[in-house]
Formats: sequence, C-alpha cells, structure tokens
Amino acid sequence: MTEPILLKGARFVLTMTGQGVLEDADIRIEDGRIAGAGPLRKQRGDEVVDCRRCIILPGLVNCHTHSSMVALRGLNDDAPLGEWLKSMWEVEGELTGETASLASEMAFLEMVRSGTTSCLDMYEAFEAAKAADRVGIRMSNGPAFLSKFNAPEKTFKDTERFISEYKGHGTIGPVVNVHAMYTNSPETISKAAEMSKAHDVPFHIHCSETREEVFECRKERGKLPVEELDSLGALWEKSILVHLGWASSWEFKRMHERGASAVHCPSSNLKLGTGGFFPMKDLLSQGLRVGIGTDSAASNNSLDMFREMKEASLVQKGQYWDASAVRAMDVLKAATVTGNSILGTDAGRIEAGAQADLVLLKIDPVLLPLRKYTLPSALVYSATGHLVKGTMVGGEWVCLDGTMKNGKDLAGRYEHLTDKVQGALL
Amino acid sequence: MTEPILLKGARFVLTMTGQGVLEDADIRIEDGRIAGAGPLRKQRGDEVVDCRRCIILPGLVNCHTHSSMVALRGLNDDAPLGEWLKSMWEVEGELTGETASLASEMAFLEMVRSGTTSCLDMYEAFEAAKAADRVGIRMSNGPAFLSKFNAPEKTFKDTERFISEYKGHGTIGPVVNVHAMYTNSPETISKAAEMSKAHDVPFHIHCSETREEVFECRKERGKLPVEELDSLGALWEKSILVHLGWASSWEFKRMHERGASAVHCPSSNLKLGTGGFFPMKDLLSQGLRVGIGTDSAASNNSLDMFREMKEASLVQKGQYWDASAVRAMDVLKAATVTGNSILGTDAGRIEAGAQADLVLLKIDPVLLPLRKYTLPSALVYSATGHLVKGTMVGGEWVCLDGTMKNGKDLAGRYEHLTDKVQGALL
Repeated sequence: MTEPILLKGARFVLTMTGQGVLEDADIRIEDGRIAGAGPLRKQRGDEVVDCRRCIILPGLVNCHTHSSMVALRGLNDDAPLGEWLKSMWEVEGELTGETASLASEMAFLEMVRSGTTSCLDMYEAFEAAKAADRVGIRMSNGPAFLSKFNAPEKTFKDTERFISEYKGHGTIGPVVNVHAMYTNSPETISKAAEMSKAHDVPFHIHCSETREEVFECRKERGKLPVEELDSLGALWEKSILVHLGWASSWEFKRMHERGASAVHCPSSNLKLGTGGFFPMKDLLSQGLRVGIGTDSAASNNSLDMFREMKEASLVQKGQYWDASAVRAMDVLKAATVTGNSILGTDAGRIEAGAQADLVLLKIDPVLLPLRKYTLPSALVYSATGHLVKGTMVGGEWVCLDGTMKNGKDLAGRYEHLTDKVQGALL
Repeated sequence: MTEPILLKGARFVLTMTGQGVLEDADIRIEDGRIAGAGPLRKQRGDEVVDCRRCIILPGLVNCHTHSSMVALRGLNDDAPLGEWLKSMWEVEGELTGETASLASEMAFLEMVRSGTTSCLDMYEAFEAAKAADRVGIRMSNGPAFLSKFNAPEKTFKDTERFISEYKGHGTIGPVVNVHAMYTNSPETISKAAEMSKAHDVPFHIHCSETREEVFECRKERGKLPVEELDSLGALWEKSILVHLGWASSWEFKRMHERGASAVHCPSSNLKLGTGGFFPMKDLLSQGLRVGIGTDSAASNNSLDMFREMKEASLVQKGQYWDASAVRAMDVLKAATVTGNSILGTDAGRIEAGAQADLVLLKIDPVLLPLRKYTLPSALVYSATGHLVKGTMVGGEWVCLDGTMKNGKDLAGRYEHLTDKVQGALL
C-alpha cells in the first residue's frame, strides 16, 4: 500500500460527472482510487502535490493503436496506400520478440507522457504486455489473428494463453484481436468471436476502412462487412469495430442493436487517404458508444490524444458542414468516459470511487485566456500532450515531470530504446 | 551592427534549396542575413550557439490571421457559424486601441514561440504594428476596409497613412486589407485595388469562404466572386485571396493568369464548418502560389503553424482520397518559400544571402526515429511548436529558451497581457 496522495489547489478540474468543472479544487487518491474531489484538508501521511498552475482531467483512452509500429514512424510516408502497406509488412516481419517489446515501450512512454492512461493495442501482445508493465500504462491487447503471418491454430492457442496469463491482471486486459475480415477466413472469425464471448473479453477488429474492402466482402460473401460480422456471431456488446469510414447507416443500426462499439481514427483515415465518412454526430445521437484512436505512429504520426480529439472534432464539423456537429465536450467524453466503458475500466471521471487515472496539465499561454466555461475548448482545440506535467494510472505516477515510474528519465530512456530498435531493424 | 552568430552542429538543417537536408551542419549569420551554411569554422567575435540536439529550418510564414482576436479564444466555440460570428462582432467592438495592441502582442508572442517568423495580419493595423515591433516578428497588415465598422473614406486615409509610415520599415509591411466583398461596395474594392497597385503593396481579402457568399455575389453582381474581383481590377500579382473553399476551377485559372496567390486555412474552415473544398493539389500542379494560414485564434484555436501544416496535408489527402495528394515537403514549401514569396520577403530558405529568419527545434521523442529522409515527415506530422527552442527574425532572436528579445520571460509577459486584456474587455 502506498501513501495517500493529495493533489492540492488545481486551478480547474474537469470531472466528467454532473459536477462539471471544479475551480481551485483538491483531489485525494488512496489505494489507487479517487477518495474525494473538492476542497479537502491535508491529512497526516498525505503526499502533497502542488497543482496551482495545473488543470486536472481524467486520463485519456487511446481506443486503437499498434504500439510497436512506432519504430516505423516516417517510413515511406506520403506513398499511396497499397505501396505504403507493402513497405510496412516488409519491416514488420523483423519487428518481433525483444525488438517489438522495446518498440512498444517507446509507444507507451510517448502515450503516458502526453496524457494517455489506457490503450487498446493490436501488436505482439506478449511482448507489448512486458513493455506495458515496465511503463505502467493500462493496455488491452491479444495475439492478432492475421493469416498472412500466423496459422489460426497457433493464434487460438496463443490467445488462450494470453487470456489465462492476464485475466485479472490489474492493468493489462486480454482481448481477442482479429486483424480484419479480408485477412482471415469466416471460420476463424466465427471461432474467435466465440472465444471472446466464452472468456467475456473484447473482440477487436478493423472494419470497413477502405472501399475495396467493402466491395470485396460484398462480392465474396454476399454481405456488407458489419452484416457479415453479425452473421458470424462477431457482433456483441464487447465488439469493438475500428475505422468504419465506409459502413452504411443500417450497419451502424445493427451495431447499436448488438451493443457493439465504434472507434474513430480521424488522422489515420485522412493520412492514408482512405476516404469515406465516419458519421460520429449521428452515432452519438443514436447512443452508440464511440471511442477515439490514434492508430499507429506510422499512420498518424503522433500518439497524442489531445491532437486526436481536435482532429476528430474538426473532421466531423467539416464533414457535416456544421460547427456544432461534434463539440469539445463530445470528444472529451469519447476519450475518457466512453473509452473506459468500451475497455471495461472503472475510470474516466473524477469522483470518489473511480480508478485514479488522471492527467495534470500545465496552464500554458496557448490555453489563455482561460475561463471555467472555455475549459473544454482549451483542452480540445488548443492543448497538446506537450503540456502534460504528470500522468497517473491506478494511483501511481507513470510520468511526472519527465520521470518514469522507475525513476528513470523518460526522454533518455526513449532515445536509448530508439537506438536499440533501429540497430535491430537495420 | 550586432555580432555574427554561429549556429554550431545542428543535427539536421532543412535548407529548402537544391541542397536538401544538411547533417551536422553550421550556419553563420551576419548583418541579419545568412552568411553561410555547411561545415564552418568559428571566427573571432562569433557568438556560438550549440545546436547539436536541434533541427534548423526556415521560419514559418502564417499567411492569414487576425492577431488580436486571440483575446476571444474559446468564446462561443461550437456554436453555429452565424451565431458565432455575431458573438465575435459584439466583443470586437471593444477590441481597439491599447487593448488591441496588447492582444496582438499575445498573438505575436505565441507565434514566435512556435516557430512563426512572419504573418499576414488583418486587424487594427496601427496597434498591431506597435505590438509587432515590441515582439520583433515580421508582420504585414493594414487598416481593414469593413463598411460595417468604418466609413471607406476614413479607411482610405488610414491606409495611406499606414503605407507612408511603414513602407521601407525592416519588418513591418503595409498591405491593402479588404475584409470581404460582402462587407464592401464594388467602388470601395475597385479603389482599394488601385491603391494597392499604385503603392505596389499586397491586396489581401477573404474570398469564397462560404456557399452563401458565393450565392449572394452571383445574385447581386451577376458574377462569381473571383470573376467579380477581376472585373473590379482587384486580381493582380500581389493579390492574396484567402479561404476559397467554394471557388470554381475556372476562377482558380483566372487567379493563375493574373499571378494572384491563394491561402489555405484548413483548421478554420473545418472548425467553422464552412464546407467546400480547397483543391491544393491541383493548384500546386498548376503553379499557383499557395500559402497556409491559421486564421485567428478564435477560429482555430491555435496559432501553431506546425499543427497547421499537418492539418493542410491531412485535409488534402482526405479530400482527394490520396495519401500522396499533398506531401510533407509540399506544405513545408508553402509555409516557408511560398509564404515569403507571397509577402515579398527574401527569406524561407537557408543559403547565403537570404534573410536570417530561422527556427531551432529541439529533437524530442515524438520525432524519433529520425533519419535524414524522414525529416520533412517528422516536422509536419509529428512536431508541434512546443518543440521550438529559438526563433530568429532578420538575425535577431525574438524568442530563445523562453525569453523575448527584450530579455523578458515570454510566458510571464503573456500572462500579464492576458490579465490586462481580459480586464479591459470585461
């Protein structure tokens, strides 16, 4: 048991509860959870952190990424999609074992440094899990079904092993990770979905990212991708479908009926030029759960969820020709409350009882003038992860003033990892 | 005359010339200009700056902004366009004189701190000019023709006065600033264009930002906006048309024939939900000069040109459904070489003879892994202005390690200005 922590005198606290924004407030953390928020007195044994020049908000949830692809950042950028993908597959063959673990650690360090407390990952799950443990970030992951690289039999075994190893782990959550419909047989998808239900863990899949994919699915299987997933039994309340730029309104309706969630990766969709339209405004008004993801550092090339929240809001306003389409509070909710709901974590709000997944943000000129009612706007449209002073996961500082939880300098460790990964890939 | 400065050992230098990217290079600055770039020896009297953990690139040009509107950042965000505009006009009535000057200073400080060395401004020109002088940023500006607020006769007189006061000034450039066609009579526009030609200064106007505007122009004047500008004599080689989301291909052809320039403000267009399509890929291949602008901090809400370059590239890739549509180097060129060409400054490239408008960027984890050939990608897709260590305009440090050219702490000055401006507006 660690000592209680008292975050003292935060200028603003974005609670994401009915309380709205607190001013000049304190937060006490005990046993990994929030014990209280508001005007609080220092108690004996409290470790006090001066937050007078800070904003505190719930930690951000990155609902889709491929952590170790950070090693491929910048590679063949601006190439047409097919060509880019080909160059990714080539290097990815090398990105395994220890190298993958070190690369994943880079991504997780970058995430916690920019205010992300939890992510849904799809990459070398066992290696990523070691990295997530080193960093202290929450991570959901699982071996990826991807017939191009792995026989499904092996992936089923590995997934069983991953689930039994990590079910009940405090910060690592097992997931059934299916790369996509076009990289797996219908039988594999169906069996994988069954497995996710049997173990009550999320089923995570890329879906309807490109027009080609939808066209091929319709041609080969006679159904649109989401309909086909449903007929394979893969659409249930822990299903998480990512991208969906080319999904139709009735497919979203089907997702809603089944309780499945959608993840929006606006920067990646734009950067890869996949086109389409993710109708976030409509999905939110229907009550579908929508999370936000950066996708990999190779297709973004940033893992900063502050930047991604802005992109999501801007893209939606642009696509709907409506400045009110998706507001600052909508994307904040997607990145906190909803992200945690999708991944099954009791966090994303600042109130007694919730997991203490928090971000301390420095008040910087780019946020000024700052008033209580412009706080959501400042966080979404002006802030970036560079303003993060500290990130806490389950009551533990995973990044504070540039230092990792093990006391090491974060940037120094990052450079060291970069050198090792580049050395291994060359 | 100041002492020569030797920037020593930069990891990478993005020259924006045929030389491409230099590695481990030095740059000497003498009398406000670049004296050389490459491996250089320290000479007696050189002031040496250690750049070993830095990237050096030409200073960024923000081709469209309204500086003092930074005071309105966050105000009524997410409201529909018409409602938002109304709330802007209301507060803007107060944003004059000393208050406007202090607010403009905030914007200029924010710009130099994030790597912008030059901007094209449209707001309270006399007050902004004082602020630009205090900060040391290059600024082009002029009293705005806007019949709602000012009688044109007064604006003509003020413009004459601004031109005679600032023509030949080292860092402030006069401009004929016409708010828009729908806020001025054809006679005013025609006479303003004449004035810009007579004084050989830029003619800067918002054009075809919204569908309504194009519809109204067609209805009232029988022509599309760019055609009408042409028939009023307002389309010449120093004309700068901003937004153009609703301009047609033949209007762009007309602009190209006249040698006029176009400015893309992607974040503002998205945030205000004005819709339309700025066909940057086509414009570049036609040879039209295209600059990039953040627009005001009220409609963005950031003045960070690194973020704006990314947005421009992403929006274009997204709209063309093509990852190669507008590449990292294309937006870097727009924000350096072309921006300076549009504003008539001999800067935007790192080679002997050019004005020393430069940015020093810290090498940060978010840029890694970094190779010579991924440098443009890292600058556009991963960097933000928070990585700026120093910004130099005409050989003078306007921001270095958080300090202004007058030795004051930049963030402290910014907070002080915010308090004064808020106090005056309340």
